Amino acid sequence: MSIEAAIDRISALIGDRLSTAKGIRDHHGEDAAYYTPTPPDAVAFPNDTAEVSEIMKICNDESCPIIPYGVGTSLEGHIQPIRGGVTLDMANMNKVLAIHQEDMDAVVQPAITREALNEDLRATGLFFPVDPGANASIGGMTATRASGTTAVRYGTMRENVLALEVVLADGRIIRTGTRAKKSSAGYDLTKLMIGSEGTLGVITEITVRLQGQPESITSATCAFPSMESAMNTVIQTIQMGVPMARIEVIDPTTIRAVNAYKKMELLEQPSLFVEFHGSEAGAHEQAETFGMIAEENGCEGFEWAKSLEDRNRLWTARHHGYFAMMAAYPGTKPITTDVCVPISNLAEAVIESMAEAKARGFDAPLVGHAGDGNFHMTFMVDPDKPEEMVAAKELAHEMNRRALRFDGTCTGEHGVGIGKQKYMAEEHGEGWSVMADIKRALDPNNILNPGKVVQIN
Amino acid sequence: MSIEAAIDRISALIGDRLSTAKGIRDHHGEDAAYYTPTPPDAVAFPNDTAEVSEIMKICNDESCPIIPYGVGTSLEGHIQPIRGGVTLDMANMNKVLAIHQEDMDAVVQPAITREALNEDLRATGLFFPVDPGANASIGGMTATRASGTTAVRYGTMRENVLALEVVLADGRIIRTGTRAKKSSAGYDLTKLMIGSEGTLGVITEITVRLQGQPESITSATCAFPSMESAMNTVIQTIQMGVPMARIEVIDPTTIRAVNAYKKMELLEQPSLFVEFHGSEAGAHEQAETFGMIAEENGCEGFEWAKSLEDRNRLWTARHHGYFAMMAAYPGTKPITTDVCVPISNLAEAVIESMAEAKARGFDAPLVGHAGDGNFHMTFMVDPDKPEEMVAAKELAHEMNRRALRFDGTCTGEHGVGIGKQKYMAEEHGEGWSVMADIKRALDPNNILNPGKVVQIN
Repeated sequence: MSIEAAIDRISALIGDRLSTAKGIRDHHGEDAAYYTPTPPDAVAFPNDTAEVSEIMKICNDESCPIIPYGVGTSLEGHIQPIRGGVTLDMANMNKVLAIHQEDMDAVVQPAITREALNEDLRATGLFFPVDPGANASIGGMTATRASGTTAVRYGTMRENVLALEVVLADGRIIRTGTRAKKSSAGYDLTKLMIGSEGTLGVITEITVRLQGQPESITSATCAFPSMESAMNTVIQTIQMGVPMARIEVIDPTTIRAVNAYKKMELLEQPSLFVEFHGSEAGAHEQAETFGMIAEENGCEGFEWAKSLEDRNRLWTARHHGYFAMMAAYPGTKPITTDVCVPISNLAEAVIESMAEAKARGFDAPLVGHAGDGNFHMTFMVDPDKPEEMVAAKELAHEMNRRALRFDGTCTGEHGVGIGKQKYMAEEHGEGWSVMADIKRALDPNNILNPGKVVQIN
Repeated sequence: MSIEAAIDRISALIGDRLSTAKGIRDHHGEDAAYYTPTPPDAVAFPNDTAEVSEIMKICNDESCPIIPYGVGTSLEGHIQPIRGGVTLDMANMNKVLAIHQEDMDAVVQPAITREALNEDLRATGLFFPVDPGANASIGGMTATRASGTTAVRYGTMRENVLALEVVLADGRIIRTGTRAKKSSAGYDLTKLMIGSEGTLGVITEITVRLQGQPESITSATCAFPSMESAMNTVIQTIQMGVPMARIEVIDPTTIRAVNAYKKMELLEQPSLFVEFHGSEAGAHEQAETFGMIAEENGCEGFEWAKSLEDRNRLWTARHHGYFAMMAAYPGTKPITTDVCVPISNLAEAVIESMAEAKARGFDAPLVGHAGDGNFHMTFMVDPDKPEEMVAAKELAHEMNRRALRFDGTCTGEHGVGIGKQKYMAEEHGEGWSVMADIKRALDPNNILNPGKVVQIN
């Protein structure tokens, strides 16, 4: 029973699709988080579910850790093999297996990215709506219960995955769910696997819900005199039942960086970036209602983006906020956060977090999926100043504690990984030990991404 | 270790809120299904979560089965104590604990019914949308993952429960989830408990999502020349992305019975009952689009119900289809079914099921939540004719097998209970044994509603 023995046996099974080359191992030793890299002992590239099953049997037999890997865009060290073992890079399983236009669903392999999937869907008039910004893999998005800018309208991966094929720790292959839209037939294994971060099984097929391309899409940015007035606009809009496709908050620091990075001229004030989907009349009505609410809250400037080109420019700017900050603070390391609270507490949580960061000398950019109560503050840290890292971590810690106090969660969409483990007991109480009970039942040898989500040994 | 000892100890704990009276036991021995009643040995009426926890500790200690009970409207024998034990009637825990208007959620105790909850919400402009027809308890609806006529727009209990308080088999009390709208913090215990039918824990508090009362509500009925044209209307409407609030199919047999029972004059043809929610303009636009599609499919008569009174009349008629059939076939026992398939297969599944029933001599009424691909056929059986019961059970069996062949599920919304156990292996394969693994991990003594959902011993 050893990692070495497992590697030998997997190598015998898949030949040169198992690699122990340093470059490849290093590439799989870190994601987009800031943790010290921990490369796996080997990386396997399975071609199909049957191979995944055989590899799992070997790893279970040899008690060898196994870590599923999509494209490595996770933000909390999810895919770091902190106890060594074999990384299962799903890159060869990246196909669309079926598109059911009439039923508005598609069956895909885990390594396909959301952009590639939407490319394949273009001719159908359908699209896959979940958009976390990064061009993540659908398997990885499922494993982290990802969401992003459009979740306020279309839901997160939780609402957009109908069924899964999963290989269990002992190599058994299960199908969770059917293509029926709803079912009351027993425990919801689909939802149990979504967000399990590779600790309960390896996802080898995903049936996703699709949406019809709206007849009309309009985007806009609007600037507010204060963060509070922007937040109040969000709360009132949601309460009015306006089916916003996107409603994002962006702070002046981010706007400043984006203006510089993208050569834009957005007002450098607390802002909302919004999008309306619907029929011509419907989207227009939504925009009117929103505009009225925004104006009542003192909105100081509305900029519309109706053409595809203008909309792409706007949302690329939003999604590139991260890179814009990297450009604005060259040489820094970003420490990201990801809290989510009930929207009635959002303004307070945001304003307190910003004030605290400012008091500690950080000009920390803040963006948020405000309609869901989810926001991210990023601390740009000079790696040569350890005191900055300490301060950033303290501030991030305070944000997480604050979110829990406000009846929220320490992670709205990034997942637990390494970074959020320490809040699990506080957020879930005894529920966290129930998660561990489930993990023990499904993975008794603790081979599946060990050390993540739950604490077993 | 015995049921008797458990009853003595619970009696010492809650006094006369434990009853062994025959009438009370009999009342808790059956739900709305047709199975032979199996009364519990005693019925306990806890007042709060702490008492539920103490009772669970006793039952776990004494290996005494414990069956949570709401209002008894389940349709598959879920609450039948098939191995005796203690029924936990939650009737005293029926309060609204909090309404958070700004966040559009409410925290309720399990025994409150959906109608009582909506009564309490009336002044807030918010409502709880899930409507299974029966005035079920919110706890029971959570435990069976119920849905009904409005799921096509607002989702099932799966989408409308944010968080739970649950008492585990060993008496531990957990909170699953927070009031944040989304979270990636570990395994989704909320969704695991929803639909677990009292086999994994006793639900003692439910945080439900609420919806804003739409500005405009309009209902209509429309008659079609054939079941196929009605079905095609449904499929095309859903594909066009019309956000239908309700889109129900009703067959001529049901309409005939409803006309007689409710003194109505609906066209006795395959029909759709629909409802539109939105702004004035939005609901109007939806109705126009739907009307156009219906007309293209040969719709032969549209009857609008715009006033609250007319709408209530229409939906009461729909919900009373069951009673109307009982009146039309006095002395019969209804055998209900509940399959759900991808909507591309709905027409075929419905038409095959109707033809087969007719070939066996049944004039079996059919109603369906067509937008979700979910339908119910009911066989009205003369209890004095055992051959009718045999034929009905064979037909129901064929329907379930057909649903699985069509990539669907044997239960769209009623749950597993006693009746659907035999399809679980076929529907879930190895997944069913994973459910049993989870059950063993959370309830090692198998005291929680034993014999339901999974097979342990």
